[in-house]
Amino acid sequence: MGRWEPNARGRLEQAALELYSERGFEQTTVAEIAKRAGLTERTFFRHYADKREVLFGGAGSLEELFVRTVTDAPDSAAPLDAVAAALDAAAALFEERRAHSRQRQAVIVANAELRERELIKLASLSAALADTLRRRGVAEPAASLTAEAGIAVFKIAFERWVDEANQSSLSHLIGEVLEELRAVTAGA
Amino acid sequence: MGRWEPNARGRLEQAALELYSERGFEQTTVAEIAKRAGLTERTFFRHYADKREVLFGGAGSLEELFVRTVTDAPDSAAPLDAVAAALDAAAALFEERRAHSRQRQAVIVANAELRERELIKLASLSAALADTLRRRGVAEPAASLTAEAGIAVFKIAFERWVDEANQSSLSHLIGEVLEELRAVTAGA
Repeated sequence: MGRWEPNARGRLEQAALELYSERGFEQTTVAEIAKRAGLTERTFFRHYADKREVLFGGAGSLEELFVRTVTDAPDSAAPLDAVAAALDAAAALFEERRAHSRQRQAVIVANAELRERELIKLASLSAALADTLRRRGVAEPAASLTAEAGIAVFKIAFERWVDEANQSSLSHLIGEVLEELRAVTAGA
Repeated sequence: MGRWEPNARGRLEQAALELYSERGFEQTTVAEIAKRAGLTERTFFRHYADKREVLFGGAGSLEELFVRTVTDAPDSAAPLDAVAAALDAAAALFEERRAHSRQRQAVIVANAELRERELIKLASLSAALADTLRRRGVAEPAASLTAEAGIAVFKIAFERWVDEANQSSLSHLIGEVLEELRAVTAGA
């Protein structure tokens, strides 16, 4: 086998997700993931630090997309509108992968360590958004609040979207949850 | 020495905080904390599972206070107003302990593991608030959104309050940040 393995990252991620779903996260080894993907353990560790990280490989590109979209929003856009545009851009990444996202969410919800990693990822996204808003000239605490609110909207809309009972698109759900945020903060 | 050690929890917490500030969290052992507090390691482990938990001993009573205040809010109170009352009740717990809170925050900010534990504590507070709001009859996603927004307000106000440059009370800062939340979500 040559060193060039086409789409090794994607194959490892898919194999890991299947095994975590079948046997549980804790019961799965890196050796088993590599074998299922038709790759070596050595290749696994070239792409991921450990078996937890294989589920969070997309975090970096999601953050880049958030930052780029907020940066590129028109100067006239209100902070929350710039963040809403970033959530919509992210939704487009996920829409095609609903079954995959559902499976991944079920694995994460079942394991405390993975739930913690997910929280850390969301906090890091929020910090990146706040930083980008400050670079647009948004003052504190508005920048941090808008970022935290945006991430809360994304998290809650995402949880609704991966629910089997729900048929709406992620983009639609983000819009609904954002409206609900405006409603709960408008009262009295 | 008898088994009854007056205020053992408080003494251990104070000793831990001093040592973490002086030497860093990683460089401090449980034996050193117990010694500084004039207690035994055995006593330490009767009160705390490990040297990380000694910094989060108040999380349970904070959560109880949040839940009780939201539960006791008048039926007519809007969800965010019930949560605001809980944040104010919590502020009263902290106001007298500003120097202690500053020292604790500096220790947490300096250590990734402690920052993660703080995120988990905040997520758990948010989940408890959302649950309490649902028991008041608030539907989803309003319950989760209001809880997340409330925790974001608390976190941001708290960070401002522990800043040396800031002289305002925590209660005042919570009010200001809450107003700012209403402003950033009201636009467009």
